[in-house]
Amino acid sequence: MKKKMLMMFLAMVTLMIYPVSAFAADGPATPDLQIGLDTAFTFLAFILVFFMQAGFAMLEAGSVRMKNAGHVAGKTVLTLAIACLCFWALGFGLGFGNGNSFFGTTGFWYAGDPQAASFDNALGFSDVTLNVKFLFQMAFAAVSLAIVSGGMAERAKLSVYIIFGILFSVVIYPVVAHWVWGGGWLAELSMQDYAGSTVVHLTGATAAVVATILLKPRLGKFNKEGKPVIIPGHNQVFTVLGVIILWFGWFGFNPGSALSPMGGFFGHVALTTNIAAAAGGLAALIASWLYFGKSDIPAMLNGVLAALVAITGACAYVQPWAAIIIGLVAGAFTFMTSQWLERAGLDDPIYAFSVHGIAGMWGALSTGLFADPDLIEKGALVGKAGLFYDGGFHQLGVQALGVAGTFVFVAVMSFIILYVIKLAIGLRVTEEEELMGLDISEHGTYGYPEQMKLIAESESKTRK
Amino acid sequence: MKKKMLMMFLAMVTLMIYPVSAFAADGPATPDLQIGLDTAFTFLAFILVFFMQAGFAMLEAGSVRMKNAGHVAGKTVLTLAIACLCFWALGFGLGFGNGNSFFGTTGFWYAGDPQAASFDNALGFSDVTLNVKFLFQMAFAAVSLAIVSGGMAERAKLSVYIIFGILFSVVIYPVVAHWVWGGGWLAELSMQDYAGSTVVHLTGATAAVVATILLKPRLGKFNKEGKPVIIPGHNQVFTVLGVIILWFGWFGFNPGSALSPMGGFFGHVALTTNIAAAAGGLAALIASWLYFGKSDIPAMLNGVLAALVAITGACAYVQPWAAIIIGLVAGAFTFMTSQWLERAGLDDPIYAFSVHGIAGMWGALSTGLFADPDLIEKGALVGKAGLFYDGGFHQLGVQALGVAGTFVFVAVMSFIILYVIKLAIGLRVTEEEELMGLDISEHGTYGYPEQMKLIAESESKTRK
Amino acid sequence: MKKKMLMMFLAMVTLMIYPVSAFAADGPATPDLQIGLDTAFTFLAFILVFFMQAGFAMLEAGSVRMKNAGHVAGKTVLTLAIACLCFWALGFGLGFGNGNSFFGTTGFWYAGDPQAASFDNALGFSDVTLNVKFLFQMAFAAVSLAIVSGGMAERAKLSVYIIFGILFSVVIYPVVAHWVWGGGWLAELSMQDYAGSTVVHLTGATAAVVATILLKPRLGKFNKEGKPVIIPGHNQVFTVLGVIILWFGWFGFNPGSALSPMGGFFGHVALTTNIAAAAGGLAALIASWLYFGKSDIPAMLNGVLAALVAITGACAYVQPWAAIIIGLVAGAFTFMTSQWLERAGLDDPIYAFSVHGIAGMWGALSTGLFADPDLIEKGALVGKAGLFYDGGFHQLGVQALGVAGTFVFVAVMSFIILYVIKLAIGLRVTEEEELMGLDISEHGTYGYPEQMKLIAESESKTRK
Repeated sequence: MKKKMLMMFLAMVTLMIYPVSAFAADGPATPDLQIGLDTAFTFLAFILVFFMQAGFAMLEAGSVRMKNAGHVAGKTVLTLAIACLCFWALGFGLGFGNGNSFFGTTGFWYAGDPQAASFDNALGFSDVTLNVKFLFQMAFAAVSLAIVSGGMAERAKLSVYIIFGILFSVVIYPVVAHWVWGGGWLAELSMQDYAGSTVVHLTGATAAVVATILLKPRLGKFNKEGKPVIIPGHNQVFTVLGVIILWFGWFGFNPGSALSPMGGFFGHVALTTNIAAAAGGLAALIASWLYFGKSDIPAMLNGVLAALVAITGACAYVQPWAAIIIGLVAGAFTFMTSQWLERAGLDDPIYAFSVHGIAGMWGALSTGLFADPDLIEKGALVGKAGLFYDGGFHQLGVQALGVAGTFVFVAVMSFIILYVIKLAIGLRVTEEEELMGLDISEHGTYGYPEQMKLIAESESKTRK
Repeated sequence: MKKKMLMMFLAMVTLMIYPVSAFAADGPATPDLQIGLDTAFTFLAFILVFFMQAGFAMLEAGSVRMKNAGHVAGKTVLTLAIACLCFWALGFGLGFGNGNSFFGTTGFWYAGDPQAASFDNALGFSDVTLNVKFLFQMAFAAVSLAIVSGGMAERAKLSVYIIFGILFSVVIYPVVAHWVWGGGWLAELSMQDYAGSTVVHLTGATAAVVATILLKPRLGKFNKEGKPVIIPGHNQVFTVLGVIILWFGWFGFNPGSALSPMGGFFGHVALTTNIAAAAGGLAALIASWLYFGKSDIPAMLNGVLAALVAITGACAYVQPWAAIIIGLVAGAFTFMTSQWLERAGLDDPIYAFSVHGIAGMWGALSTGLFADPDLIEKGALVGKAGLFYDGGFHQLGVQALGVAGTFVFVAVMSFIILYVIKLAIGLRVTEEEELMGLDISEHGTYGYPEQMKLIAESESKTRK
Repeated sequence: MKKKMLMMFLAMVTLMIYPVSAFAADGPATPDLQIGLDTAFTFLAFILVFFMQAGFAMLEAGSVRMKNAGHVAGKTVLTLAIACLCFWALGFGLGFGNGNSFFGTTGFWYAGDPQAASFDNALGFSDVTLNVKFLFQMAFAAVSLAIVSGGMAERAKLSVYIIFGILFSVVIYPVVAHWVWGGGWLAELSMQDYAGSTVVHLTGATAAVVATILLKPRLGKFNKEGKPVIIPGHNQVFTVLGVIILWFGWFGFNPGSALSPMGGFFGHVALTTNIAAAAGGLAALIASWLYFGKSDIPAMLNGVLAALVAITGACAYVQPWAAIIIGLVAGAFTFMTSQWLERAGLDDPIYAFSVHGIAGMWGALSTGLFADPDLIEKGALVGKAGLFYDGGFHQLGVQALGVAGTFVFVAVMSFIILYVIKLAIGLRVTEEEELMGLDISEHGTYGYPEQMKLIAESESKTRK
């Protein structure tokens, strides 16, 4: 009888355990469904990040003068083409291939495999298929390059952008990505950068500011006393559209970095992302109102973007109240620094360094302050609690090291590359070309032929 | 032996029941997958509704003059910032918290919880995580406020919009949302409003028309004989883009309100939404052709929007043939009413009241006519069959009561708030500011600096 | 005891089998979940394809002159309205209903059914609900019509477009769709057209080129010696935005045609689509640089589109390396053919035939060269290996037959319809109307009233 009872007991135990194991490993249906769901979710995230290029096109084109608008907008499509092909050929392998602490050494000329499972990295293991993960990371690389293009606006040669863009996509961005997300030395230190305040934004912005410094200011940006002259963008409706598209795309950037909707953790990321952005816009609007005496629309738009940049690294680690603080600080501080940098002689036409660089640094440091251990556990995240959660200065130190390491590496590499290009072919179009605008000088046609004709008529009259 | 048989039987029963119960309640895999899928689906719906703000920015900016375009577009980003923060602080609790029949009294300063299950409300129980449901509802609140901004275009002070926007987002929109979707008195009466013809559109449009009346017409809108003068929008390409973005975003608004793709019911909602929109555009185009002798593009665009507004409440309740009728009526009727209202002395620059108010009322009433009991059952919807499905006048009466209650509440609240603001600081910019445009008067820079320079030159010549 | 053992054994077997069968067939949870997931995925694909209309609006409006921009943009909304209603009434039945080898004869006046399972066709069986599959196919029909509208730009009467659009949506597009995707004669021959290089793009482009020929060139397009004069589009920022939106929407067009994220095959499609587009843009940019001596932005944009068109049919069948070749060839070849066709006297303002027609043919033929039998198996695709995979000339012959059949059918049908319209009411606006622009002649208002006033002033001065 005992024997029978034992068998019965075994049957019951099997009964209880079987379905669990069936789904935990290679059961008939559920794991495939979860792979399908996670892959579809990450695909959605990819296309949203991809679409951010439309936002950059509108933001950057709207922020420059009419004579350069076609050139600047067109460069966005070129950014996509360069980033996609370079990331396919070399960037993915250098960033996410197996290798050493500094770069990957496998996975070049990505051949794709429809069914390949994904690999583990600092973003956490994911069952998303490799093809879609490749595309998601490729879109991030393209965003980082789009930030660079802002720093070159209205005076760099197209050929310079193409050469630098290729090298940035191969030897700069993937290296930083490997450090933090590909198992490199910052991943080993458990640097917290959920979706790329440092990897994507600070990297792009650092290259942009080096380009900005080497290119020197646009003609007419500073008057004889060295004071900055406002060169307003030609179309605020475009910049507004650009910012809304970017905010929209950021819902792929940040929540999408969860690579899965399972457990609903991505919803927390979406929440913190959104309220930080709202707070940043308001903070910058108020700051400009106090500073200029008028509420400045471009300032508000940059405040939204700065807050999004800052929350990008912190979004998974912080509570909603902290997200609002991060956004408020990013919005107000970016506004102030953009004014200071301009008065200090920097001509950064799209404010790439203030918005993506300074806010990127603030975002990276903010997790060292606000990272909540409860969220780290719930989201299976890396790193330790921040200063305000009894984590001490450890994580803050790691974050500062990551920021410093990234800034120095990208700045040095960018300087070397651009300096060599400068010696070889020169960075900047001629004065005459700059005055006529890069649409006509670089491409032979105006972006707005009919409107430019009116402007030319008006200018010829003024000269008389 | 009987004992053994009984145990055997019990084992078999357990065997059969266990897996079922495992998935019905807290089982290891399937319910999590469904939560993940439903949450991802609702997240998609959220970002689509969020993106409608890009549509409003383009629609509204394109519909005004160049001197106000930056201001009007920029206000959309401000709308997002205000709506997000107010809904986070107070709106969500007032709208969807537990409370009485008029408003909620819990859930303020939404703290978020990555894993919290959602709660039940008039939209039906959903397993979507609370964070994502919060975001989805927040996006609806922002749409309602964006409608308000249309009624204030080209003459209201920015500060007035900010103050009214905050109060609208706290004490007006959430109250109506609670009535219908948060378990309030209209939910108790089983009012049918699937995605917000009444809650979102009529609410926003009623506030907009009160603002329009109190603000008085724009300078030059009516000639000395009191006849309306056409003040065309400056950029029809923008308005077209805005309308396509809104139509696109509406696939989050309506089908997304199913909060789940399970069972495929949301596909029915997408189908009725789409063909109603197509019918509305054609009806308005033809109506304008008959009325003006020319096919009017803005009229067609407003016809699409009016049909979308009307089908918003009805989309789940009606068959495709009825959706086409609802769309046709909305398109043609909105065109006619917009002409009548203008001749009656109302200057509603973006036709906010015709498109969102009158079509919103028609949409709310239309379910009282066309609601199909078969769909109510399949979609697990509230309310009864409509008049044309042998439902008698009961549901039509409920719908009319909901429309009347919403209109009166929003009109009275909006009037009080705006009247107090008028007494305190005045609603309208000065005549001089209105003539120079709100871009320069409210923000200190033109949205189109280079083009405005040409216009200024042209005007100075005309004056000589 | 044996009996007990047997029962025990049966209990264990039931235990092991039950959960498997539960999910494999009609069990409580998994199949419904998969239907939900596949339907949600296809819905995402639908809205992306739908959103391509925003891309067409911006691309086409940006490519024409200011005086026609409102008309051209507005026509896109009209395209949606016509295509949606015609496809609902007749197109879906003719294309995807059961019938003969040439067209379907069931499924007219699509009544919808929230729960109806989908039916089998050449795209493969899918569990996507019929409503969503209807919407997905409807969006494809609308894209095909949008391509037609490009060929009529700047000179065709609006009424002509409406009449032709209706007939195209009823008797042209659905027939070709039936041939390839609805079980028609090309499906029986196993023609490979994954997402419509032939069905959607070649069909639309062939109708466009017939319209272009019958309409004759725009006034001033050719000088007295018959040499083409460049008539640049008025807004390159719009065209850039249009192209990025189209590229974004193509992630619904191609990967979405998998109708399911299960197994991750759609990720392969997304990968080939994306790198082909990048390669096409670069190839066309370089081609224009060599040919004009300047990198031409519109050429680059058309290169991206041509590559997307070409990869549309091939995306599932080819490896990434082949996708890059297909994209490079499409980008460079489209640029060259657009120049040749223009010098041969064709005035195709948006290059509809080069971009969608010639690249569509190349795309259709390319699977006959590059189709990989390994992918055909993994993706459960139709047809045989291509020439370069030891498939011989069989598949290439089928593809050529499909291209020829489609071209001849669409060209003949379009010619007959347009010729009858020409005899009845004439195709083209008057010379005077063309000179003043179709915004004012067809709709009574300018798309850009304030800017057109400046242009009119400038022109009146020039005349003096």
